[in-house]
Amino acid sequence: MKKIYFLLLVFTYTFAAHAQSADEATIKKIYDEALSRGQSYEMLRELTTKAPARLSGSPNAAAAVEWSRHTMKELGFDSVWLQPVMVPHWIRGKKEVAKILTKKRGVVDVNILALGGSIGTGGQGIAASIVEVKDFEELKTLGEKGVKGKIVFFNRPMDPTLIQTFAAYGGAVNQRGAGPSEAAKYGAVAAIVRSMGSNPEDYAHTGGLRYAPNVGKIPGVAISTNHADLLSQLLKEEKDLQVYIETNCEILPDAPSFNVIGELRGTESPNEIIVVSGHLDSWDVGEGAHDDGSGCVQAIEVLRIFKAMNYKPKKTIRAVMYMNEENGLRGGIEYAKQVELRKNTKEKHVAAMESDRGGFTPRGFTMSATEEIENKVKSWKPLLEPYGLTDFNGKGGGADIGPLAPLGVPLFGYLPDSQRYFDYHHTQEDTFDKVSKRELELGAAAMAALTFLIDAKGL
Amino acid sequence: MKKIYFLLLVFTYTFAAHAQSADEATIKKIYDEALSRGQSYEMLRELTTKAPARLSGSPNAAAAVEWSRHTMKELGFDSVWLQPVMVPHWIRGKKEVAKILTKKRGVVDVNILALGGSIGTGGQGIAASIVEVKDFEELKTLGEKGVKGKIVFFNRPMDPTLIQTFAAYGGAVNQRGAGPSEAAKYGAVAAIVRSMGSNPEDYAHTGGLRYAPNVGKIPGVAISTNHADLLSQLLKEEKDLQVYIETNCEILPDAPSFNVIGELRGTESPNEIIVVSGHLDSWDVGEGAHDDGSGCVQAIEVLRIFKAMNYKPKKTIRAVMYMNEENGLRGGIEYAKQVELRKNTKEKHVAAMESDRGGFTPRGFTMSATEEIENKVKSWKPLLEPYGLTDFNGKGGGADIGPLAPLGVPLFGYLPDSQRYFDYHHTQEDTFDKVSKRELELGAAAMAALTFLIDAKGL
Repeated sequence: MKKIYFLLLVFTYTFAAHAQSADEATIKKIYDEALSRGQSYEMLRELTTKAPARLSGSPNAAAAVEWSRHTMKELGFDSVWLQPVMVPHWIRGKKEVAKILTKKRGVVDVNILALGGSIGTGGQGIAASIVEVKDFEELKTLGEKGVKGKIVFFNRPMDPTLIQTFAAYGGAVNQRGAGPSEAAKYGAVAAIVRSMGSNPEDYAHTGGLRYAPNVGKIPGVAISTNHADLLSQLLKEEKDLQVYIETNCEILPDAPSFNVIGELRGTESPNEIIVVSGHLDSWDVGEGAHDDGSGCVQAIEVLRIFKAMNYKPKKTIRAVMYMNEENGLRGGIEYAKQVELRKNTKEKHVAAMESDRGGFTPRGFTMSATEEIENKVKSWKPLLEPYGLTDFNGKGGGADIGPLAPLGVPLFGYLPDSQRYFDYHHTQEDTFDKVSKRELELGAAAMAALTFLIDAKGL
Repeated sequence: MKKIYFLLLVFTYTFAAHAQSADEATIKKIYDEALSRGQSYEMLRELTTKAPARLSGSPNAAAAVEWSRHTMKELGFDSVWLQPVMVPHWIRGKKEVAKILTKKRGVVDVNILALGGSIGTGGQGIAASIVEVKDFEELKTLGEKGVKGKIVFFNRPMDPTLIQTFAAYGGAVNQRGAGPSEAAKYGAVAAIVRSMGSNPEDYAHTGGLRYAPNVGKIPGVAISTNHADLLSQLLKEEKDLQVYIETNCEILPDAPSFNVIGELRGTESPNEIIVVSGHLDSWDVGEGAHDDGSGCVQAIEVLRIFKAMNYKPKKTIRAVMYMNEENGLRGGIEYAKQVELRKNTKEKHVAAMESDRGGFTPRGFTMSATEEIENKVKSWKPLLEPYGLTDFNGKGGGADIGPLAPLGVPLFGYLPDSQRYFDYHHTQEDTFDKVSKRELELGAAAMAALTFLIDAKGL
C-alpha cells in the first residue's frame, strides 16, 4: 500500500511537473513568436497612419473599423464581424484660442483644448475674470458670491508622490469630469481645468466631461500644465486678471458605428468565450497610439500568435475592438447587452481581458473575479514572472469590459508600467513614435500567455 | 517567567514593527523628495546640453568634469574633489563613408560608425569583396582561403527572444569587441559588424573594440541593423559584391582627465564609505543621456535628497562619476587602486552601487556580495517592492565598480527595465528627450532608498 501510495505520489508529481513544463514551453513559444515574428508593431503603424485621431463618429473612426475588419480577415480568423452601435458625435471645430489679459505683461497666449463633450463658446468667445480653486470644497466655500460670472480655474495637480500614475490621475480627474458642472452650479461662465499630465508640458490633455443633469452647461477646457502654472503665477501678481477663451466645438446627433470582432473558434468548448480587447476610438488629437491603438493590435496579435504557432484553443478566443470608450462607452455597453440577450443560449463568457493602459513594458495583470479565480491565476505566477509579470495585486479589468462584470464574467486588465502614460494620454503627443516595439510586443505576448493559461487550464 | 517572555516578545515585535515603519517613513520621504522636488532631470538637461558626446579625452569630457564638480559644490556637499587619471584619446575624425557596389542596383550608401579604438582606413578608404558570417566558428571554417583580402561582415543579430536585452547584447557583442582581430587572423582587411541594436534601425551603434595582441590591426565599423539586413540581402543577390568603407579615426596619445567625487561625511562612522556612482564619459555620438548621464545625475541626486530631507547619514555617502568606462575603464581601475593604497588606513568601503543601465523605470537591483549580505538585502524587499523594485536575482554591480570586487567590496547595480536600452545605446539617438522625467527620478529614489537601508541597518 505504502509503495502504491509512493508511486502514485511520484506519478502525480511527475505529471504535474510535466504539465508545468509543457505550459512553460507553450508560453516560451508564444513569446518567441511575438518577439521574433511579431506583427503588433507594424499593425499599429498602419492603424495610426491610416486612422489617427479616431474620435467616435468621425471619418477616421470609420476608417479604423474598416482597417480592423480587413486586417482580421486577412489574418484568416474563423469569423470577423461588425456589431452596430450608435455613438456620440462631438467635434472640436476650429482650433481653440486662449489669452490671459494682464496689465503688467500684456496679452499672454496659452495652450488649451476643449474638453470632449463640451459646448463651445462660439466665435465671440468668453472673457471674464478668473478664480482659482484646488477642489470642489474650495469652490463651495467661495460660493455664488465668489464665482458668479467668472471663469473657474481648477488647478489641482496630479500628485507626483503617488508611484502609480493612475492613482494620481484618479485623484485629480474629477476636476475635468465634473468640474464644469460644479462651477456652473455657482454661476460660473466657463471652466479651465489643469491638464491631467504627470509633468511640466506646453501641450494640453483633452478628455471627457460629464454635464450634470439640471445644471446649465458651460464650456470646459483643459490648459497645459506649464500654462496652468503660469496662469496661477499671473493670478498671484494680478488678482483681477481677465481670461479670454474661444472654442468652436459642437455636439452633433448620434452617429452609427461598430464594435469590430474577430474570433478563433474553440475546438473543444466553442461556446465558452474568452474576450481579449482594446478600444478602437481615440481622442481627436494625436494618433491614439498608446490609447488605445496598442490595446487593439495586441488583441489581434493574441489570435495571430495562436494561429501562427498552430495552437488550437479549446475555447473560442475572441478579439474585440470596442467603439467609443473615450466619450460614452457605448461599444462596451452594447457588447454586454448582446451577451445578456444570449444568456439563455449555451454561449458563456468565461473571461474578458482588456489592454487600455498603453503599450508599455509589462508589470502584471489586474483582476476582478471571485477570490477563488484570483487565487488560481496567482498560482500561475511562476509561469509568468520570468516575463516581468510580477504584479497581480490590482483590482479592475478595463472600462469597456466593465459592463460584463454584472453578468459575472471574470475580468482581467493587462497592466503595463504606468510612468510614461500621462505624458501622452489624450494629447497631440500620443503618436506611433512614442511606442517601443519590444514593449508593445511583450504586452501582446503577456496577454496571449494568460489567455492560453485560461484556455488550457480553465478558471 | 512566561509572562516576562511574552512581554519581551511583544516588546521585540513592537520594536521591530516600529523600526520597519520608521524605515518605511524614511523611504517614503526619499521618494516624495525625488518626485516632488527632484533635480535629477534638470541636472541631466544641463549635463547633456553643456557636455554632450563626452568621449574620454575630448573637450566635452573636460566640460563634464567641470560641470560635475561645480554642481556638487553648489549643492553644498561636504567635500568635492577630482581624482586624476590618464585616459585613452580616440577621435572619430571626419564622418565615415560606406558604399555597397552592386552590379544590379548600382552604388548603395549605408550608415556606419567606426568602432571606438579602431584604426582608420584613411582618406583612400578600403574597397574589397565581402564575406558574411554569423560567428567565429563560421569564420574559422572559412579560414584564410575564404577570408584573405576580404572584408568580414559579422551579422549575428541580438536574440530577440531573450526577455532581458542585456542577455541578448551579451550573446552578440563578441562580434564587435573581438570580431576585427578574429577576422584579421585570417587575413581580412576590415570588419563590418552588425549594430548591437534590438530593432530595425537606420542608425549605427558604435562601441569599443579590443585588438588582440600579436595580430595586425584592421579597421572595424558598425553598420545599422537595417543596412546589415540590406547588405545580407544584396549578398544573396550578388555573391561577389564589393564594399567601400572610409573611416578617419585616430588613436592619439593618452590624455589627462579625472574622476569627480563628492561626499556627505558620515556622522557616526565617517570612515565607512558607501559609493553611489555612474560614469561621466559617453560615446562621441548622441548626448550620453541614458548612457550614462542618467547614472551620474542619479548618484548626485542621492546625496542631494539626503541633504534636502536633512538625513544625516551614519556612514560617508560618496557620489563618484568615473571617467572612461566606454573605452578603457581607466577611471574605475584608478578609483579601486586608490582604495587599495589606503587599505591600511581606517577607511573602509562597505558598499558600492552603480547605475549604468539607463534612466528607465525601476525593476530592482543586481548584487555581487556574500550570500549572507545578499540575503540581508533581499530581506528588505517588502520595503522596496511598493516602488516597483521586485527583481533582486541578477548578479553583478557595474563595470566601473567591478575593480572593487577583488577588494571585497559588496557591489550593487541599479536595475531598470531593459527593453528600450538598446534602441539608444551608443547611438546618435541617446539624447535627453529620450529620458522620462519620472522614470529617471524613480531610479534616483531607488538608489537613495537602498543607500539609506545600507547606511541605517548595515550589511
